[in-house]
Amino acid sequence: MDVRRVKFSVIAIILQIIFIILFGVLGEYGDSAKAKSPSPAYDVASMYPYFQDVHVMIFVGFGFLMTFLKRYGFSAVSVNLLLAAFVIQWAYIVRGIIHSVAHGHAKFPVHLGEMLSADFASATVLISFGAVLGKTSPLQLLIMALIEVVLSQINEYIGLDKLGAVDVGESMYIHAFGAYFGLAVARVLRNDQHDEAKSEGSVYHSDVFSMIGTIFLWIFWPSFNGGAASGDEQHRALINTYLSLAACTVITFAFSQLVDNRGKFNMVHIQNATLAGGVALGTSANMPLQPWAAMAIGCLAGIISVIGYQYITPFLDSKLKIHDTCGVNNLHGMPGILAGIVGAAFAAMASSDTWGESVYEIFPLMVPADNSTELMDVMKEYPMITEAGIGRSSTTQGGYQMLALVLTLVVSIVGGALTGLILRLPCFDNVHGNRMFDDREFFIVEGQGFPENEDGGFDDDANHTKVPMLSQNS
Amino acid sequence: MDVRRVKFSVIAIILQIIFIILFGVLGEYGDSAKAKSPSPAYDVASMYPYFQDVHVMIFVGFGFLMTFLKRYGFSAVSVNLLLAAFVIQWAYIVRGIIHSVAHGHAKFPVHLGEMLSADFASATVLISFGAVLGKTSPLQLLIMALIEVVLSQINEYIGLDKLGAVDVGESMYIHAFGAYFGLAVARVLRNDQHDEAKSEGSVYHSDVFSMIGTIFLWIFWPSFNGGAASGDEQHRALINTYLSLAACTVITFAFSQLVDNRGKFNMVHIQNATLAGGVALGTSANMPLQPWAAMAIGCLAGIISVIGYQYITPFLDSKLKIHDTCGVNNLHGMPGILAGIVGAAFAAMASSDTWGESVYEIFPLMVPADNSTELMDVMKEYPMITEAGIGRSSTTQGGYQMLALVLTLVVSIVGGALTGLILRLPCFDNVHGNRMFDDREFFIVEGQGFPENEDGGFDDDANHTKVPMLSQNS
Amino acid sequence: MDVRRVKFSVIAIILQIIFIILFGVLGEYGDSAKAKSPSPAYDVASMYPYFQDVHVMIFVGFGFLMTFLKRYGFSAVSVNLLLAAFVIQWAYIVRGIIHSVAHGHAKFPVHLGEMLSADFASATVLISFGAVLGKTSPLQLLIMALIEVVLSQINEYIGLDKLGAVDVGESMYIHAFGAYFGLAVARVLRNDQHDEAKSEGSVYHSDVFSMIGTIFLWIFWPSFNGGAASGDEQHRALINTYLSLAACTVITFAFSQLVDNRGKFNMVHIQNATLAGGVALGTSANMPLQPWAAMAIGCLAGIISVIGYQYITPFLDSKLKIHDTCGVNNLHGMPGILAGIVGAAFAAMASSDTWGESVYEIFPLMVPADNSTELMDVMKEYPMITEAGIGRSSTTQGGYQMLALVLTLVVSIVGGALTGLILRLPCFDNVHGNRMFDDREFFIVEGQGFPENEDGGFDDDANHTKVPMLSQNS
Repeated sequence: MDVRRVKFSVIAIILQIIFIILFGVLGEYGDSAKAKSPSPAYDVASMYPYFQDVHVMIFVGFGFLMTFLKRYGFSAVSVNLLLAAFVIQWAYIVRGIIHSVAHGHAKFPVHLGEMLSADFASATVLISFGAVLGKTSPLQLLIMALIEVVLSQINEYIGLDKLGAVDVGESMYIHAFGAYFGLAVARVLRNDQHDEAKSEGSVYHSDVFSMIGTIFLWIFWPSFNGGAASGDEQHRALINTYLSLAACTVITFAFSQLVDNRGKFNMVHIQNATLAGGVALGTSANMPLQPWAAMAIGCLAGIISVIGYQYITPFLDSKLKIHDTCGVNNLHGMPGILAGIVGAAFAAMASSDTWGESVYEIFPLMVPADNSTELMDVMKEYPMITEAGIGRSSTTQGGYQMLALVLTLVVSIVGGALTGLILRLPCFDNVHGNRMFDDREFFIVEGQGFPENEDGGFDDDANHTKVPMLSQNS
Repeated sequence: MDVRRVKFSVIAIILQIIFIILFGVLGEYGDSAKAKSPSPAYDVASMYPYFQDVHVMIFVGFGFLMTFLKRYGFSAVSVNLLLAAFVIQWAYIVRGIIHSVAHGHAKFPVHLGEMLSADFASATVLISFGAVLGKTSPLQLLIMALIEVVLSQINEYIGLDKLGAVDVGESMYIHAFGAYFGLAVARVLRNDQHDEAKSEGSVYHSDVFSMIGTIFLWIFWPSFNGGAASGDEQHRALINTYLSLAACTVITFAFSQLVDNRGKFNMVHIQNATLAGGVALGTSANMPLQPWAAMAIGCLAGIISVIGYQYITPFLDSKLKIHDTCGVNNLHGMPGILAGIVGAAFAAMASSDTWGESVYEIFPLMVPADNSTELMDVMKEYPMITEAGIGRSSTTQGGYQMLALVLTLVVSIVGGALTGLILRLPCFDNVHGNRMFDDREFFIVEGQGFPENEDGGFDDDANHTKVPMLSQNS
Repeated sequence: MDVRRVKFSVIAIILQIIFIILFGVLGEYGDSAKAKSPSPAYDVASMYPYFQDVHVMIFVGFGFLMTFLKRYGFSAVSVNLLLAAFVIQWAYIVRGIIHSVAHGHAKFPVHLGEMLSADFASATVLISFGAVLGKTSPLQLLIMALIEVVLSQINEYIGLDKLGAVDVGESMYIHAFGAYFGLAVARVLRNDQHDEAKSEGSVYHSDVFSMIGTIFLWIFWPSFNGGAASGDEQHRALINTYLSLAACTVITFAFSQLVDNRGKFNMVHIQNATLAGGVALGTSANMPLQPWAAMAIGCLAGIISVIGYQYITPFLDSKLKIHDTCGVNNLHGMPGILAGIVGAAFAAMASSDTWGESVYEIFPLMVPADNSTELMDVMKEYPMITEAGIGRSSTTQGGYQMLALVLTLVVSIVGGALTGLILRLPCFDNVHGNRMFDDREFFIVEGQGFPENEDGGFDDDANHTKVPMLSQNS
């Protein structure tokens, strides 16, 4: 029995028991899930398809997108499942405490709306996972998730409820946060043996597996950006995201060829940069941008992302010692910042002249203070904000949007760096050197077909000898 | 022309023609599908997303979950498609006869609700398929499906309509039935040449293919347990199943490491035991268990399932000569029994004090006999049950739930054993020895990449010589 | 820098910029997506699940179905994404001009309904892509898509709006059109070096990847045929397509064995012919055929498709020099013609005696000219048709259905042949000889696992040397 893994198991079991106890003490069914609920379940019917689309993105999309590594397919799709299942529960509890218990409610509600929020929250951690993929133990990842969920939910709470900075598809609060938190962790965890790793890289069919993730993310991204909205805001979020992704994809192919000196497409770009158009629209998808603007933003995101993969990722690795396994800076980081800036810019230009009443639906804190009915509604929605904070100008709203973006970057980077320091403690089983990017470190790999080559060097003899090459009898 | 396959083709064609005739004689569009239907099609709008989620589970989920075998990927995903397409039609007919024609209606209705039921019914057969995977001919599987659908639908009819034992996610009537029927078939079919089989086992990428099935089953299981419910019952079914699966997943990883002497995760556990939390909730998902209880049940299911794969499956194989290819006992059998027991326990504790009116919605036969309006409704819903059978106590309801579980086990085991005897008839082309677990027995396999090793021995020379190793030119 | 690829990139970027400009000049949000939309967004809630099912078909279904080629997996799934993303935008514009701008509206509406239509339109091009898969450059495909979208949308407009020939699942306007357009292109592009191609064919796991596409297409085909309908028509479309596919699948397996001299199943048949039942119902799915008729049509489609793959495709290749990479003639072409004929036959038999008012809902131009209220509605729906054209007999309607089918075949074949002539221009980088069916022509392929054998011969040395065999160290 390997002591390291007993450690993971014991901690996972203890945390799971704590989760159950916290749900028992603090959780209860939400209104429309209560026995003989008086309220109709219509909200379930209209929300469930969006929830399931997002659910596919979290488990199939993120899981398979990360299977591109030739020797890390088991870990990518399995640990993605583990982390998401873990975070779903923890995010419920953390959100319940922040949004209900901290405000004097004895219980937090458990319902479909929070299932969607819990799935969103797990995306934050899975994005960070992409930055440290292959370089961390499952135990480190559980600890990272524990901390990151708390910090990201507090950051979101401050951004949304205190600053009133909207982010319908959570490009700031999820994508940018997850990316920069993960990159900070990756930087701090980096050690001297990093360059000994020999297993990074893909094989032909692992790049095809990865496309399963890409395509499902691509398809359902409109549901991610629109799932939490309703009415005409939701309809616009679907349209804008769909068009942004389409334009981003065409531009990604074009730039992927342009940056290669043989003029060939690069699967890394196609797997990832095609999706940047979804991230870049995440803050503004519900705004009446007009379709052409959504497309233009998608193009810009694709260009930034391809350039990121081609030039910035190698630079970060060699110069700043930030190794970004999945290139989350290019898919979630920079496009997330772009999303925040775009959102702030449109907020600063928002006006009831052009947007009509929608401006107050999208930015409730811009409701004129002389409209007493709506004012009451807004104050109920934003109990943290005093009457003086309502009636913002569009410039003020734009400023708060930028403030939320900056706050997100600060919290994620500082939080990630501190988390990295904790994860470096020897008790959390950091992975070193040639054991990185290799499923054999944490998974039983006994079958044929494990991509083998001369680097050898993986020193788990008991296991290694059971991994013959695919053509063992040649 | 191989005589064996003409046999399959001829029988398949004849059965398909019979199906068409029976649909022609007995089937007609249901009310909301009739030309110029007077009734609104709202039920279609609300049910269709659930139907499609279940549809994905049946064809993608079950199909890919079984692709883990290195040389049986074609058969797993293709014969899964064949069997499900076959059973969908046959289950329609059998259910139509049991529920409509046997009660004096000239025709049975064809509508979306029955599409969902037909998909559910196919799950029963696909679970049994998992027990005999690699060891049976397509012809045997058709015959097995013919018999199993009749027996399982009669069992469900007795359980639901005569005994009034509820099972919202069909963990008794589908999961436990399918598992023990299949295991009984597998036991009876076992022959002396079983140990000559050399092709069982996975390769690296076949385990990744299998995860496609796992993840889609995991994602859509809430729709499986909640698809046939409505209102607050449906909402609870979604919440409970979601939380049960999340907790089950964390615990599965923990126990997978605990039971391995090197402390490594086992892909077999992750592919299967992570799903046991969905099965274990199948009977009680719509009940107001409270979220923490759903999570605790999920944990218990995960533990049972991992222990089953690690210790019970090898024991059944070596001691009882029951070879369970996919481990359906661990994913569907024992968790299905757990589901039945949990359902009975909650029934026995059900009370209008704590559950309010929901207790009568969930267990209609507990309606007090002095409530004449509801009594009439219940008598219409349960024409098989006399007025004296209504007004059950919670203990009585719990007893009927247990009775339905026991009946299911008896019918499935006896029925499976008898079916196995029929399938042993030489005319049904049993598969022997080294021909087992090998696609070359029933599929054209001419390309590269078929996992080859020294066992050789597959004696279909005409075909075998066309299957070079992946590295044929090395 | 390879000049050929700069050409693709530059043209793709220019076209993308033109698309954005055209959306800017001509596009605007549809009513229920407008800021503070007065109309409720109910249509979004009811249509979105169908849209997402179709979306999965386009990107996952078509994309993975084409990954069966052993050395062309990157191209299949990636260029499918590129083409669909490109066509989505272009089809919006072309449809907007045909349906709105050409009728005097300043702008065309951008909403979910048009997103569904744009996805449908992309299917046309992706079907043609299947006929030329492996034999064309990305640049050729962009040009092909530009032309094909215009021709297919004009053809659909004439068929639907001028001839009044209905086609709920677009089997004529999409499937038959796409197939014969693509085959005509393939015929014209064929050159003397065709027989030098050595890379066609599958490997074991590429055939499993392809089944991902098959299964998702199979599952969601009811949504394709029913997504644009509503009420009882939609309900019937779902039922009929589901049953047709189930029957088609059983018959496909039976015939796949019958036509093989060793009596073995052929993965090519299972990947494709199982879907023919969905195509064959595409024109008549919403009609009250009765379930048995849908099943019988599905069987017929399966038989035609298997025979096509087994006998007709080789004949077309060797005798008519039409090389059909994916066999689109067998999956989309002949079943599409069958669908058109079935639709015409049912139209010719339609009668209000048996179908009630549904006959006028399905074939609005059959509304009796003496019903003034409905007449007005129909004239509004068909502004191209004078009052004298309304009140058709069923025979006349059947004749128009056949006329639309014939027109579709003529436009697609002539249009495809002319497009092929354009694509032969040297500037569009036709792919020759042994460079065909090989990802290395347009993609960076540096990892292990690229299926290699003695044919060698791919003369891109700079790249070729970086593609070692999977077992490089044996």
